[in-house]
Amino acid sequence: MKSLKITTLVAAAAVTISAISLPAFAADRVYKLKMAETWSANFPIFGDAPRNMARMAEEMSNGRLKITIDSSNKHKAPFGVFDMVRSGQYDLGHSASYYWKGKVPNTLYFTTMPFGMITPEQYGWFYEGDGMKLMEKVYQPFGLLSFPGGNTGNQMGGWFQKEINSLDDLKGLKMRIPGFAGEVLAKLGAKPTNIASGELYTALERRTIDALEWVGPSLDLRMGFHKIAPYYYTGWHEPATELQFLVNQRTWKKLPDDLREILRVSMKLAAYDMYTQSYHESGVNWATMASEYPNIQVKTFPKEVLAAMKKANQELLAEKSAADPVAKEIIESQAAYMKTARVWTNISDRAYLESVDSLAE
Amino acid sequence: MKSLKITTLVAAAAVTISAISLPAFAADRVYKLKMAETWSANFPIFGDAPRNMARMAEEMSNGRLKITIDSSNKHKAPFGVFDMVRSGQYDLGHSASYYWKGKVPNTLYFTTMPFGMITPEQYGWFYEGDGMKLMEKVYQPFGLLSFPGGNTGNQMGGWFQKEINSLDDLKGLKMRIPGFAGEVLAKLGAKPTNIASGELYTALERRTIDALEWVGPSLDLRMGFHKIAPYYYTGWHEPATELQFLVNQRTWKKLPDDLREILRVSMKLAAYDMYTQSYHESGVNWATMASEYPNIQVKTFPKEVLAAMKKANQELLAEKSAADPVAKEIIESQAAYMKTARVWTNISDRAYLESVDSLAE
Repeated sequence: MKSLKITTLVAAAAVTISAISLPAFAADRVYKLKMAETWSANFPIFGDAPRNMARMAEEMSNGRLKITIDSSNKHKAPFGVFDMVRSGQYDLGHSASYYWKGKVPNTLYFTTMPFGMITPEQYGWFYEGDGMKLMEKVYQPFGLLSFPGGNTGNQMGGWFQKEINSLDDLKGLKMRIPGFAGEVLAKLGAKPTNIASGELYTALERRTIDALEWVGPSLDLRMGFHKIAPYYYTGWHEPATELQFLVNQRTWKKLPDDLREILRVSMKLAAYDMYTQSYHESGVNWATMASEYPNIQVKTFPKEVLAAMKKANQELLAEKSAADPVAKEIIESQAAYMKTARVWTNISDRAYLESVDSLAE
Repeated sequence: MKSLKITTLVAAAAVTISAISLPAFAADRVYKLKMAETWSANFPIFGDAPRNMARMAEEMSNGRLKITIDSSNKHKAPFGVFDMVRSGQYDLGHSASYYWKGKVPNTLYFTTMPFGMITPEQYGWFYEGDGMKLMEKVYQPFGLLSFPGGNTGNQMGGWFQKEINSLDDLKGLKMRIPGFAGEVLAKLGAKPTNIASGELYTALERRTIDALEWVGPSLDLRMGFHKIAPYYYTGWHEPATELQFLVNQRTWKKLPDDLREILRVSMKLAAYDMYTQSYHESGVNWATMASEYPNIQVKTFPKEVLAAMKKANQELLAEKSAADPVAKEIIESQAAYMKTARVWTNISDRAYLESVDSLAE
């Protein structure tokens, strides 16, 4: 009886191996990967993307790929994700590329750029243009791979205590605005600063700062800024903020082909899914805001101010291009791609939105 | 010697099974699935989506999921995909939901609607709103599952021999325009018709028809319409055309959980990927068209004409709602979702595009 069982089992196992040409028993290994995210525990939307990714990877691999996620509460280094994944302390990271510009200046360009591409244009650049290739060029020397990690959609220009009517109103303005956009505003006489999210409300309430940008209605509403700053400006500085999955190259290389593809696909889909989720949450939260806080005044910066911001932005890009050939290559690639894609954006969705909006209900 | 080998193999197989809790030998089966697509062989973009899907599914499953695709050249029934997947002749299909409105009227609503949602809004409705649930309600009685299968982006309003200056110009206008949009134009006195793609050029050239809509620059350019019709109108009738994956429910049920998730994820990612590809190709082909055929006149329908189209559209929707409670449920769900999402679209991407466009280069 016992020998009969063994025979049956062996026969079945033999069929398995020959039928699907697996490397012998590759399926028996469980790969346990550790991921560090920049976000704190239970951070909505941003934190949902890596969990969506990990769940898909585990289910598709039938448990052979198990990814555990540590939030910043645990690893205590929200802006140490690059280093921790580089060293191999973590296999994976979820963060945003522009946080690393102090370490590796050319990482700046793979999140979003002031006056740059909107989300579907930027996905075109990443996947159908040169975006992925250029990102690999920047990250490869550090033993890292970087992939799009979820898009917030177009971000709002921020909450202001006072209306911005002219360039003079920017002079001396203390504003929480990180990254390249902060450099742009500094050129125009503002005082950009970065403040951790937990301290933002108090800083604005006590007038330590006069203004701040955070994300948009999907995440701003729960922060309560509308209670202490009446003006909410439309965006210019982050038209397509894309988060990032980081992967240690040694981890990537040791995965078998099927699990590598499962990881790649899970990351890519989780990124698109976050864009859809952000779009949805933005609409829902905007409606809540409009009905519960009808006094919020939505504004667009005056043309004079936007024109000066754009000029300062172009000057900064020219400086970066002159200083570094890889920066030049990326900046030129993005500008050329946007020029072609924007014509289509304007003739398709924008023309459509203007057409239908001009009609009575 | 022989018995030793057997012992080793059995031990290894046992480890495999216990370590990953597989149902015994689930991994040994190769599932060979057959898919029928509506498109002819080598049809660009539309045909790339199911091939992208099949490749991901095969690689992620390490060959356990093999999907072969028959084009319409082979199965000879481009509009028979619904029936062939329903009967089990094919496991899967790639087509468009609104092609089945003659068989099952409520399939109409899951592709795109005149004056309806743009692509990111519609993905929000599918995945974060009630879209998927309602689509299941419509397809479930036929033993079918339907999933988004790739978005073309906003389609152009079509190629016209004569300029449309007033409602009078629509009277008697013979136009190839299928689906709900054709019904809308018929209400305004036009003569909508459907003509297979291979005969479109000749029909327009010989004035059998006065106008036609096809897709947009991503696919129109290779059709040559710009050579025989000078006016190219912006869109109103298909703002977010979503193709469709159909799955026979019996096939779905017999797949193990991991392969079912692999199939679901591959379809969902292939759909998003096609949107990015369409966006890219639209931009690139628009640029080619503008440089090689500068005489094409891009027009938007006059407000009077658009207003009448919208009114006719609303009347038709009211008729469908009155006639069928499920149609009513879908139409109301879409209208409510669009209302919330459109406010966000206008304050984010649209406000941004208008801001930056108002500035000098």
